[in-house]
Amino acid sequence: MKIDYEMLTDLYQLTMAQGYWESGQGEMQACFHMYFRDYPFKGGFAVASGMAQLADLVDAFSFTDDDASYLASLDAPGGGKLFKPEFLERLRTFKLDVDIDAVAEGTVVFPHEPLVRVTGPIMDCQLIETALLNCVNFETLVATKAARVCLAAEAPVAEFGLRRAQGPAGGVWASRAAVVGGCASTSNVLAGQMFGVPVSGTHAHSWVMSFSDELTAFRAYAAAFPNNCVLLVDTYDVEQGLRNAITVGLEMRERGDRLSGVRIDSGDLSWLAKMARSMLDEAGLDDCGIVLSNDLDEYAIQSIRDEGAQVTSWGVGTKLACAYDQPTLGGVYKLSATRAPGEDAWCDRLKISESVAKLTTPGVLDVRRYFHDDGRLAGDMVFDIHAGADEREIIVDPLDDLRQKRLAGKRFETLLKPLARAGATVLDVDLRDALAARNRARAGLATLDESQKRMLNPHTYPVGLEYGLFERRRDLVARLRGIA
Amino acid sequence: MKIDYEMLTDLYQLTMAQGYWESGQGEMQACFHMYFRDYPFKGGFAVASGMAQLADLVDAFSFTDDDASYLASLDAPGGGKLFKPEFLERLRTFKLDVDIDAVAEGTVVFPHEPLVRVTGPIMDCQLIETALLNCVNFETLVATKAARVCLAAEAPVAEFGLRRAQGPAGGVWASRAAVVGGCASTSNVLAGQMFGVPVSGTHAHSWVMSFSDELTAFRAYAAAFPNNCVLLVDTYDVEQGLRNAITVGLEMRERGDRLSGVRIDSGDLSWLAKMARSMLDEAGLDDCGIVLSNDLDEYAIQSIRDEGAQVTSWGVGTKLACAYDQPTLGGVYKLSATRAPGEDAWCDRLKISESVAKLTTPGVLDVRRYFHDDGRLAGDMVFDIHAGADEREIIVDPLDDLRQKRLAGKRFETLLKPLARAGATVLDVDLRDALAARNRARAGLATLDESQKRMLNPHTYPVGLEYGLFERRRDLVARLRGIA
Repeated sequence: MKIDYEMLTDLYQLTMAQGYWESGQGEMQACFHMYFRDYPFKGGFAVASGMAQLADLVDAFSFTDDDASYLASLDAPGGGKLFKPEFLERLRTFKLDVDIDAVAEGTVVFPHEPLVRVTGPIMDCQLIETALLNCVNFETLVATKAARVCLAAEAPVAEFGLRRAQGPAGGVWASRAAVVGGCASTSNVLAGQMFGVPVSGTHAHSWVMSFSDELTAFRAYAAAFPNNCVLLVDTYDVEQGLRNAITVGLEMRERGDRLSGVRIDSGDLSWLAKMARSMLDEAGLDDCGIVLSNDLDEYAIQSIRDEGAQVTSWGVGTKLACAYDQPTLGGVYKLSATRAPGEDAWCDRLKISESVAKLTTPGVLDVRRYFHDDGRLAGDMVFDIHAGADEREIIVDPLDDLRQKRLAGKRFETLLKPLARAGATVLDVDLRDALAARNRARAGLATLDESQKRMLNPHTYPVGLEYGLFERRRDLVARLRGIA
Repeated sequence: MKIDYEMLTDLYQLTMAQGYWESGQGEMQACFHMYFRDYPFKGGFAVASGMAQLADLVDAFSFTDDDASYLASLDAPGGGKLFKPEFLERLRTFKLDVDIDAVAEGTVVFPHEPLVRVTGPIMDCQLIETALLNCVNFETLVATKAARVCLAAEAPVAEFGLRRAQGPAGGVWASRAAVVGGCASTSNVLAGQMFGVPVSGTHAHSWVMSFSDELTAFRAYAAAFPNNCVLLVDTYDVEQGLRNAITVGLEMRERGDRLSGVRIDSGDLSWLAKMARSMLDEAGLDDCGIVLSNDLDEYAIQSIRDEGAQVTSWGVGTKLACAYDQPTLGGVYKLSATRAPGEDAWCDRLKISESVAKLTTPGVLDVRRYFHDDGRLAGDMVFDIHAGADEREIIVDPLDDLRQKRLAGKRFETLLKPLARAGATVLDVDLRDALAARNRARAGLATLDESQKRMLNPHTYPVGLEYGLFERRRDLVARLRGIA
């Protein structure tokens, strides 16, 4: 799937780019951060994803003749052409010149801390904004949902939401992000081909319906796939379906093959799974697994497990691939500092808002993650890379400055890693790999306290501004509001 | 954007394909219908979309050497390779051989009636299932949401949800579907380039923040875009922002230019829009429009209009592009008939379910849409194209057979139109065009009674099975359940 990332943008990025270029503002250096403000799914964490696609975007970013012709064809609403030929000529030879630093894919992340930092000419920073937000917002959302589903399942989860996903790429990157978040596999063949993630799948109801009867259909499937045979037992009647599957399972055993499992895709899954387990065990097929699917999410899975159903693996589609209960992350990309060409020092930038939650943080930022001695996370500090942190290492909650925490003396890591320098990607192969990201996510989730992984009302993890940065922001707000 | 549709599929479609091929079942003719069961957004209608992408899929569908190599690399979970070399060889020379009939894009549609019918070898029908569902489900969902938003707005709506959309193609096809549903434009440049839909956009908060002060930023924008100048007034303080915009608007008028509008993107939009109108009018800028954006949907727009705010146009992002309150349509693709090679007659197929809502309808189906004399819709009849309808022209509600309606004597149209024959697309250029689809949607919505367009608790439109088809389905259920 080839994406024309240079055109995957809001028109205003291009009109602003022309404006910057015309006003001589285009070479001003800028610093933007991408972050989100609220925990997705009312949970206690998120799993960062989308950085590999962001690297693809950087690698592929250039305007073609077709792009320039298309833009040249656009009329301004008030008459005349929207873009000037000289500007389009500039775009044709445009070479992205940004530095990008980002958390590694699979990193556990929290609200109000940068996942991505972009520095470079303001025009360049803005030209990638929309596509950057698109990929990091969506993949982080789905990876987080997948992590929640997998925490609830405690057994392999296969993602198969492609048919209900939002468009072809919604499907493909949802499948990848689901694996980053912890899924064992996806049904999505294109995602398997593009990203090397495991694929899985057996048959649908239509297979059963296309044969004269269910037993014939099951036998035909077992003959065709002796090493990958999971039979879907609910086309007509689950109990009869299970009896037919048992007949075929016993025939397979005679031949030295094995019925891997039965799948139930409708009805009361918990009740039917218990019936299936008991019928299979009674028939001696205790090595035959039970796969459940149909409108599952972390809550449905938890409830089925709470009732004691023994489930070998789960298929989760719609509610995972489009993050049904919260289909967007709402991450933003905000200007935080500018620097005139030739100058050394960055100048703080701030957007004031009526709501303290939407107030931005100035500076060129990174995140220190502190650990307790036992390896669990202790707190995250957002700090300015040029100012550093004072020796007290105090963090201040950006929404409530009475909430402070001292982290001095604890071991820490810095989260942002180089992804691109002067417009060229510099990240290791490992940092583009979905399965490596899944390993990082698993390791990261293990550093969270159980209370932070609770599905409802989880414990809030301390993320704050470094004390000096907090003071700087407070003073800047006062100055812009004319108080100081 | 090039999509590898042949691989945009669930793995089980390919395992079933190999199974059909091995069992000699692959040449069996099958008939599938795509339909949805529930009104999206608890509304009273849907707007069909996704048929142009479906045509793209048919045009592009073929397996490459890379595809075959990838599939050859897959292991079966129980050992050995998943696919047989002979089957992969068959795929390499595979030519899609289906007939597809579909409603025209932009058609107003309802639950339980086919939007798409696919007939052909069962293997072919299944190989396109996942991608077909992906595109028709998602685009129909967003076109419907857009129609609702535009009905509420009664003024031009610009879609700009790309940054929060589900992946790059989620964004691109969402933008297209939004235009099909009635949006005047999209901010999405790639959608403009790919589909010829109108694009719009001006500047962001970062433009204002990058200058020394707001007035300087507004002047620079007005100088760069005298014919497309909408100023965003809420970066620091809306009232001051409006005063600065008025200063620039008056300067533009001196030069013979015009300030097209001011945009407000935060705060109490209704209250601020009224303040803006009064300040602009007082300054003599009554030709300057007001654009509102920020987390809007049909309900928020209706409430702002109910309060009397005068809004020239609306920008709607997140909640439209990902259909926030219901992010999937849930459309299905069900086998309804099969025919052995060489035979003439189709054999009914049915999937029974515990729930009457999930019961399928057998046959090779189409839809007759009946009209009242005044042009309003009277009812839709799902009928078998080989059986036709008896002279009473009675429809029976598929969920409640006591609800029946006689449509005899009314004018009708038949909804499904040829989209592909023997695997080659046959639809007119007009049927692939987003703007033509928007015209159809507008015309179609005008044939609905107001009560069917109500946002909450709308009047339910009568859709039913033709009486003979209803009886056939009832008898088949009884036979499969062993009652008759």
